Amino acid sequence: MQTVEKPVSQPVDSPLTIAGRSFTSRLMTGTGKYRSLEEMQESIVSSGCEIVTVAVRRVQTQAPGHEGLAEAIDWSKIWMLPNTAGCQTAEDAVRVARLGREMAKLLGQEDNNFVKLEVIPDSKYLLPDPIGTLKAAEQLVKEGFAVLPYINADPLLAKHLEEAGCATVMPLGSPIGSGQGIRNAANIQIIIDNAKVPVVVDAGIGTPSEAAMAMEMGADALLINSAIALASKPSMMANAMGMAAKAGRMAYLAGRIPVKDYAIASSPLTGTITGANF
Amino acid sequence: MQTVEKPVSQPVDSPLTIAGRSFTSRLMTGTGKYRSLEEMQESIVSSGCEIVTVAVRRVQTQAPGHEGLAEAIDWSKIWMLPNTAGCQTAEDAVRVARLGREMAKLLGQEDNNFVKLEVIPDSKYLLPDPIGTLKAAEQLVKEGFAVLPYINADPLLAKHLEEAGCATVMPLGSPIGSGQGIRNAANIQIIIDNAKVPVVVDAGIGTPSEAAMAMEMGADALLINSAIALASKPSMMANAMGMAAKAGRMAYLAGRIPVKDYAIASSPLTGTITGANF
Amino acid sequence: MQTVEKPVSQPVDSPLTIAGRSFTSRLMTGTGKYRSLEEMQESIVSSGCEIVTVAVRRVQTQAPGHEGLAEAIDWSKIWMLPNTAGCQTAEDAVRVARLGREMAKLLGQEDNNFVKLEVIPDSKYLLPDPIGTLKAAEQLVKEGFAVLPYINADPLLAKHLEEAGCATVMPLGSPIGSGQGIRNAANIQIIIDNAKVPVVVDAGIGTPSEAAMAMEMGADALLINSAIALASKPSMMANAMGMAAKAGRMAYLAGRIPVKDYAIASSPLTGTITGANF
Amino acid sequence: MQTVEKPVSQPVDSPLTIAGRSFTSRLMTGTGKYRSLEEMQESIVSSGCEIVTVAVRRVQTQAPGHEGLAEAIDWSKIWMLPNTAGCQTAEDAVRVARLGREMAKLLGQEDNNFVKLEVIPDSKYLLPDPIGTLKAAEQLVKEGFAVLPYINADPLLAKHLEEAGCATVMPLGSPIGSGQGIRNAANIQIIIDNAKVPVVVDAGIGTPSEAAMAMEMGADALLINSAIALASKPSMMANAMGMAAKAGRMAYLAGRIPVKDYAIASSPLTGTITGANF
Repeated sequence: MQTVEKPVSQPVDSPLTIAGRSFTSRLMTGTGKYRSLEEMQESIVSSGCEIVTVAVRRVQTQAPGHEGLAEAIDWSKIWMLPNTAGCQTAEDAVRVARLGREMAKLLGQEDNNFVKLEVIPDSKYLLPDPIGTLKAAEQLVKEGFAVLPYINADPLLAKHLEEAGCATVMPLGSPIGSGQGIRNAANIQIIIDNAKVPVVVDAGIGTPSEAAMAMEMGADALLINSAIALASKPSMMANAMGMAAKAGRMAYLAGRIPVKDYAIASSPLTGTITGANF
Repeated sequence: MQTVEKPVSQPVDSPLTIAGRSFTSRLMTGTGKYRSLEEMQESIVSSGCEIVTVAVRRVQTQAPGHEGLAEAIDWSKIWMLPNTAGCQTAEDAVRVARLGREMAKLLGQEDNNFVKLEVIPDSKYLLPDPIGTLKAAEQLVKEGFAVLPYINADPLLAKHLEEAGCATVMPLGSPIGSGQGIRNAANIQIIIDNAKVPVVVDAGIGTPSEAAMAMEMGADALLINSAIALASKPSMMANAMGMAAKAGRMAYLAGRIPVKDYAIASSPLTGTITGANF
Repeated sequence: MQTVEKPVSQPVDSPLTIAGRSFTSRLMTGTGKYRSLEEMQESIVSSGCEIVTVAVRRVQTQAPGHEGLAEAIDWSKIWMLPNTAGCQTAEDAVRVARLGREMAKLLGQEDNNFVKLEVIPDSKYLLPDPIGTLKAAEQLVKEGFAVLPYINADPLLAKHLEEAGCATVMPLGSPIGSGQGIRNAANIQIIIDNAKVPVVVDAGIGTPSEAAMAMEMGADALLINSAIALASKPSMMANAMGMAAKAGRMAYLAGRIPVKDYAIASSPLTGTITGANF
Repeated sequence: MQTVEKPVSQPVDSPLTIAGRSFTSRLMTGTGKYRSLEEMQESIVSSGCEIVTVAVRRVQTQAPGHEGLAEAIDWSKIWMLPNTAGCQTAEDAVRVARLGREMAKLLGQEDNNFVKLEVIPDSKYLLPDPIGTLKAAEQLVKEGFAVLPYINADPLLAKHLEEAGCATVMPLGSPIGSGQGIRNAANIQIIIDNAKVPVVVDAGIGTPSEAAMAMEMGADALLINSAIALASKPSMMANAMGMAAKAGRMAYLAGRIPVKDYAIASSPLTGTITGANF
């Protein structure tokens, strides 16, 4: 059904630029939780994404589902975003970020200095530690990383990270894998309205409508993993998410109608008609 | 940006079938409120829609913005859905429906018996009259119309209309043109879960995220007019709405993840790593 | 804890007046679903309510939990609101309404002509039938009843019932006993803004916050049964609901602050201080 | 109307205990933004509160509306909660907290070591700085203060502050004075579920329904200022807020009904009745 997207000429969107590198797609995906490497490969393609995040620790330790994962992706086409999932402290995260950089180099991305910074001492909600995240970010920026920190939607923390030299901020919509959607839209809106770096909404998005909503609010990009990998049909959901990210971005550029209290008729009703008028 | 939609093979969706007629697109649009006929024409194309609703009274009376409207659309490609906008009583609506059938015939759609039934005595919110709507629907069904009634999201009224032989039910998300989105999702969900005819969510949708949400809930189709026609860039918004309707439908078919209270880590963390492990 | 409500002099609220009869309390309760008659009796007292609804059919047939129910309440203090629960058609409801009037007379309320009209063909969601309800209401008004119809939150239906001579309209917040709260606030607000009879929000309220919200919107009264009767501690919940109804009403009269996008500091900060200033 | 709160015996709630000091009321109020000292005095009484927060800087500098403020309250009955409003850095806040302790002593509360810690560099949204707040809290705990920090609803930050020895955590519902209500309920619920110190919801509450909702979620107390001081009738709104805080707390203790998808009839309908049955 969605195979026949008629090309329509539209004003061209500017690319998403992170740390000087430009991307057309505004949807990033992940590699965890898939039922098979094949489903992962198909989903990455059908999502249209250009950035894929990889859990460095899980690849290094060959955690279940991560054997062969790094090799299963065509890194000549996909930009790797190594992440520090599984790190509970700033020190741990810094160390794993360095490993991630090595991994990217080994896989052919010599100039890849990106890292998705996760400092998560909490195993129940997987919520990030603001203090440890800021500390690790400051260190990684010093070491030349392009740091994309995963954070609770705290506008002041976002500002601290931006001032520390982070390449983006990545506020969470709701806990990782919860599928609760955007539960803190007010704070995310404040972050978007005030950030000078790209804002990537990460975690919690469960449906295309939630993906579109984040983009309509003015987010620069999204990262979605669980909602794709754990859907009944991951590749189809990946395609849906890719389209929703585009649709939301286009709506942001196209200028939505204002919300009004009352109805607005299609046009003034002038005159009346009778059968004879026809 | 949205011009390069890579074709991806997916399970084929069944068509939308209304009164025995099948359609691929699940987004219907309108003709009112556009700033120019050109914007209307471009938007209809970029939305990908196959059904367009036309206000019979406004065309008949050549209301402002409706001169030449009927002739501006290529009715060999687009299925006309005449509507009874501007009718305050059942009698008025029945009469205008008959005019609509004539209009469709004159424009080349000999076998078009569709009518979007609107009975709206209320000029402030443009909310439909349940009593008048049911009465008009019963008469129009007798006369051989395929009736698509615009209704408040009342599950029992929807059932009455279905039993009266209507071809669809069209519950409103929120008042016409208000852009408030889906304000009565609970009732619309009950209608969807119990209807044996297609459910078309009509009125109130302001953004692609709201369009996608209605489709994710299981709606069969959408009708969107104001949010496209009155957007800053109507054609771009039309494109976004078309993609969102598809994305929402695909997500419905792809099976979303359940909503959970807590977070779910990407994978069990087994073992620990050190720099030496790499 | 809540026993010491300090009396504070406030502008006096006008009473709730229904069909010429005035009440101080704006919370109505019910008699169904309690675990015992004692819990029911205690809850009615602690709620502070002055109107209690009784299911005529269940009392007549001595349904489980309804033996001795009518006799368990002091009808010299509480105004009976017989209801037509269990009626699927207009005819059924009219017949049961007449029985209700007899029941009220037998229990000492000679001039009680109130009836809560429920016409509910749907056994899954217990949603009311708009067509049957209007038909029954017209008949009952003719017979001199003060009709309080239970309806889906449809503003046009509410207007029809008002014009038919009903004493109130009773839009539902969400399905009976569901505890989902006010799921259709937009429609209820339109009903409130346009009704010339009291609007009583009925069904779905699960918590005091939801009760207060309905009153803050300008509802004239509430009817709450399940949320009290099925709470772990019904009498305490009844007390909480009574207080919440009052608090919401007071807030409506006291004039809430507008909702603003940005923060407002407590006062301009003038000057700076040092320890020496103190 | 609300003067006749019938005393009803209920299970006694445990007191609110902060830093070893117990309070019956769970509503705290403020002193800023009132139109007159008289309105402030009346509102404090009618709210039933036992803790009132005072902006130390504004009192020290005699900011508009703060002349004579400290003397206008009967500190033999009301516990003072000095706050550090207007401080942009940790250092500033620590200094002002010390001044607050002196102020409390001068006004007769010799053993009052409470401070509501606000570190707010942001003048647009008045959102607190997580880094500066934690730093100031650590210092103030060392100096023997009972620290009540005002924070964004970040569960990990709340845990850091608790571990640093704070007496409570005070997550914000939405920006100060915005009246937007509880915009981040998911995070506040996580904080409540995991905190070992009292959780006081602060800022953003605009109505009694929102106050009740926070208490129903299990918050231990509320702080409300703008919604009372800037209401059309502050004293009446204060009374409403006091009742709502109680109602919400009682509902939390009384055990609300679960939310269900479908309706639940009042009782099984057994048998049918006819007029003759009566």
